[in-house]
Amino acid sequence: MTQARTETDSMTGSRMNDAAAPVTDAEIFGGHEGGKLSVAATRPIADPRDLSIAYTPGVAKVSRAIAEDAALAQRYTWADRLVAVVSDGTAVLGLGDIGASASLPVMEGKAVLFKTFGGLDSIPLVLDTTDVDEIVETLVRLRPSFGAVNLEDISAPRCFELEDKLKEALDCPVMHDDQHGTAIVALAALRGANLVLERDIAAERVVISGAGAAGVACARILQAAGVADVTVLDSKGIIHAGRAGLNPIKEQLAATTNSSGLTGGLAEALRGADVFLGLSGATIDESLLGAMADDAIVFALSNPDPEVHPEVAAKYARIVATGRSDFPNQINNVLAFPGVFRGALDAGARSITENMKLAAAEAIVAVASDDLGPDRIVPSALDPRVAPEVAAAVAKAAANDGVAQQ
Amino acid sequence: MTQARTETDSMTGSRMNDAAAPVTDAEIFGGHEGGKLSVAATRPIADPRDLSIAYTPGVAKVSRAIAEDAALAQRYTWADRLVAVVSDGTAVLGLGDIGASASLPVMEGKAVLFKTFGGLDSIPLVLDTTDVDEIVETLVRLRPSFGAVNLEDISAPRCFELEDKLKEALDCPVMHDDQHGTAIVALAALRGANLVLERDIAAERVVISGAGAAGVACARILQAAGVADVTVLDSKGIIHAGRAGLNPIKEQLAATTNSSGLTGGLAEALRGADVFLGLSGATIDESLLGAMADDAIVFALSNPDPEVHPEVAAKYARIVATGRSDFPNQINNVLAFPGVFRGALDAGARSITENMKLAAAEAIVAVASDDLGPDRIVPSALDPRVAPEVAAAVAKAAANDGVAQQ
Repeated sequence: MTQARTETDSMTGSRMNDAAAPVTDAEIFGGHEGGKLSVAATRPIADPRDLSIAYTPGVAKVSRAIAEDAALAQRYTWADRLVAVVSDGTAVLGLGDIGASASLPVMEGKAVLFKTFGGLDSIPLVLDTTDVDEIVETLVRLRPSFGAVNLEDISAPRCFELEDKLKEALDCPVMHDDQHGTAIVALAALRGANLVLERDIAAERVVISGAGAAGVACARILQAAGVADVTVLDSKGIIHAGRAGLNPIKEQLAATTNSSGLTGGLAEALRGADVFLGLSGATIDESLLGAMADDAIVFALSNPDPEVHPEVAAKYARIVATGRSDFPNQINNVLAFPGVFRGALDAGARSITENMKLAAAEAIVAVASDDLGPDRIVPSALDPRVAPEVAAAVAKAAANDGVAQQ
Repeated sequence: MTQARTETDSMTGSRMNDAAAPVTDAEIFGGHEGGKLSVAATRPIADPRDLSIAYTPGVAKVSRAIAEDAALAQRYTWADRLVAVVSDGTAVLGLGDIGASASLPVMEGKAVLFKTFGGLDSIPLVLDTTDVDEIVETLVRLRPSFGAVNLEDISAPRCFELEDKLKEALDCPVMHDDQHGTAIVALAALRGANLVLERDIAAERVVISGAGAAGVACARILQAAGVADVTVLDSKGIIHAGRAGLNPIKEQLAATTNSSGLTGGLAEALRGADVFLGLSGATIDESLLGAMADDAIVFALSNPDPEVHPEVAAKYARIVATGRSDFPNQINNVLAFPGVFRGALDAGARSITENMKLAAAEAIVAVASDDLGPDRIVPSALDPRVAPEVAAAVAKAAANDGVAQQ
């Protein structure tokens, strides 16, 4: 069990009291009573004058202006800065395919985080269909209602096809956070760890356990960041060229990763590896970690149960991280998605490019750069400096990539 | 032009200063800058404990609970009390078919009014399709995201088919406000006028100019309220049995209204009529009003330009009403829809029945009943007592009709 501890967050000045006592069911359910979101008017309706400005007859002038110049919708409606948080409930947290309605508390939570950290309005749209083309069609029809799409908790490999088709169909930022949010933060953490160890990320041998949404995206971003030697495993072992029964996504992984041509399982993969990135939900035997290279890095990111307890991992690794708030080095998507969408929308970007994701990762680690250490490879998930820095970096990358409107 | 005037609203104690000076374009556009809505968290995220309650890992318990018992979504998400304000932008105010994006300021305004008067959260969903079946399909897919549907600014006769199909497809309250909101408030105003005149609504001859969404719904609710003699006109004149080229909705009107078998135009219809209800946008020659019965009632509800100026109408009628806030007797849907949806959702109603609409009209006029007069046949659009009274009456009617869950 975790110990009660209280620490002062030197970077934000806020008191961290994250594990003072376990969160109770009463607190959790009480914190969800009536839902976690509300819609507010930006300006009050207090008298007939307010009414005739916000509604009839005044609003007709605004509608007419937009009908005459579609670009004015950006200025006079909320849509262009509104994020649709979209799920079909097929891969919710560790719970799996629990359906749209049961996924809604997660999407409401996401909307709370968008507002709290990114200052962005967002609405959950949970869909009672799991058909990729129907989801695309639905969002195309709703396109005038929002300005960006955050896909969430959608099962692999459908999530890859869905994201690709949506990016093709919509002229606005689209990002599946379970893929790219996780990948951005994992890359930031690996950068942070390598700064601490004074090593070069490009020279490391990285093993990723899990070939779902997060595993695939992490492999891709690490390669984009210059890591030459990435090996990915699914539940059947190392993904390698020639393995039978691979789906198209894994075929692609087999063709582009595992440059040493490894076969076998985790034991074969981890022997001499520098980095273990756990995204599988499966536990890992600690003896395998002992076979890793000296000064290994272990990120056991499955939630709520890491692949290996961080105190156990610390016996074999120089740097350990998890997804949990009650251990050091929490790798949490909230470090990425509010700033990524904020930056994309600030720039009027029509898409989210690889460079925008890489820039987000660099910005995250930069926030912590004057205070890095083995137990602090990324900023705190609640550090209010992160999202603005990420947003600025993402907006700049959007401009550099020519996807920004402004 | 309207004169500057300041009056004290004796019923609410608030100062009415509705026409002190014309609302300027600068005020209107300034009041829309950035849109009129924002999404807020019901509980702040201030520390890691808040984060682990509202998001991971705590939220997983709530999602699992809903997966096991779907009814818990009502308690632990916002969906069951969330109104989707849906439009395809085909009949926006007086502007016509200006498209989804240009309709959004109106839908945002509607959401502001839902919140201000009904205490209800709502989200605008504007659709880039005008196909009735596609709109139904889209909302069926999104069903787990909301608890009720307010259809808005959808052209006739498509709006009738859309509402019918949606009511069939969704197990939640669905109401096209341009039809039923208008009808409820018109009925309330007619009740109020008849209380002032000490007359019986059932014995009156009512002429409705306009067979669009509002005209059709007004004819139906007046008949449901006991008015035996209702005659409806469209742009081609009186709708009567045997008239060629009627669409199915007008066929139905021809079969159920115009019990005297009138033919011709407004002149023929208005001769000796007790009530004129203008919902057409067309101007009416004042000489026609002179042919109405003594102590006539004229509701010239087109916006922003009434069918006849109220001061002109007052030469011929005992009671005059318009849709404008700068004349007495403003007949505004905001008197109805916030309370109707609030009452339906409070009752857990699966639909909105005729009795619920009739109850809403009665509740509106009841609020003004101790203060009625020729210039006060309905409460002020801003009277905060109205929506709660309407909600209570609607919820009671839902229970009586057996459509309430609770």
